[in-house]
Amino acid sequence: MQPPKRSRTATRARLLEGALDVFAERGFAGASVEDICDRAGFTRGAFYSNFASKDELVLALFQATTDRLLEQIEALLPELASQPGTLLDAVLGLLDETAPDQRQWHLISTEFTLHALRNPEAARALNEQRAMFRASLTRLVAEISATSGVRFSVPPEQFVRLVIALHEGARSQSLLEPAEVPAGSLEHTFLPMVLDAVSRPSH
Amino acid sequence: MQPPKRSRTATRARLLEGALDVFAERGFAGASVEDICDRAGFTRGAFYSNFASKDELVLALFQATTDRLLEQIEALLPELASQPGTLLDAVLGLLDETAPDQRQWHLISTEFTLHALRNPEAARALNEQRAMFRASLTRLVAEISATSGVRFSVPPEQFVRLVIALHEGARSQSLLEPAEVPAGSLEHTFLPMVLDAVSRPSH
Repeated sequence: MQPPKRSRTATRARLLEGALDVFAERGFAGASVEDICDRAGFTRGAFYSNFASKDELVLALFQATTDRLLEQIEALLPELASQPGTLLDAVLGLLDETAPDQRQWHLISTEFTLHALRNPEAARALNEQRAMFRASLTRLVAEISATSGVRFSVPPEQFVRLVIALHEGARSQSLLEPAEVPAGSLEHTFLPMVLDAVSRPSH
Repeated sequence: MQPPKRSRTATRARLLEGALDVFAERGFAGASVEDICDRAGFTRGAFYSNFASKDELVLALFQATTDRLLEQIEALLPELASQPGTLLDAVLGLLDETAPDQRQWHLISTEFTLHALRNPEAARALNEQRAMFRASLTRLVAEISATSGVRFSVPPEQFVRLVIALHEGARSQSLLEPAEVPAGSLEHTFLPMVLDAVSRPSH
């Protein structure tokens, strides 16, 4: 007999996976809880015993994606502390690879952001989730800059906001024109310039 | 009696304005041609004698917005040629001001971009429109750098792509957290650093 906890985790995972597919096909607004249950092979009862709403499920997807990214960055920390110059390459590499299907993830995260711009409750929840992610990334940037003796001329959180903004804006261009803007190319070209500029001693 | 051309232009303008409101409220997918006609006070016949589809109307909105921006930048050219350092401030100022309702414009343009990611025909049309806009901006950047004797270490089009990516990504953060990320703040902080970095003589 499977312990109940494991079964519950497996149900959640299958619902999240099914939702990814359904959202990518029909969009956040166009996908119903029923569609997600059909895809995952569960009843609405199973859905609602795991998630209070479609919004809560999407936020769980955000959380899972950012948790995975942060874990991967933390695993690199010992190596980065001895080679601080490679931080940006490492982070950019992870951003490229974390979401195996960048298109799917871009569609879902952008659609939920638009939903949040029309729905204050969703905005609060999304902002909270994004703030936790930024705080974790900011802590890592601050740690690495301390270890490597580099002083930032801007608050590390501003730099993290820049990385996120550029990555999200560039991803849209890469998905629309994959041949002209290979994934990660704008980030790889321009972020090292900014890192270099903010790492100079303040004057 | 009004000449037919003027009346046609006025009908188009009213349809575009009505569509802006309806899209912002209901989203691109949720707004029907009928909703737009109701808002603008026209029949479906009037709509289809001006636009072949909802997609074509949105592309006309993109065109009108980018034309306005380019006109404003061109009007600044004589001044910029004598004070090249102010180029970025001028462009950033225009980006801040061009769409009087940044939220509305962000919702519509992002939604149409998502639609294009699921619809190859819409993607072709959107990419064509964006390519024309980038080409005009690139020509202006190249003119100004030639006049001011500055050499770019990256192709000017790459710099234009960066400005667009950062602006679109930053706008999302500003709309979600207006107090933490005032409109234009990430662009004003970081783009001058990049401009400085790419303007150095190549070595």
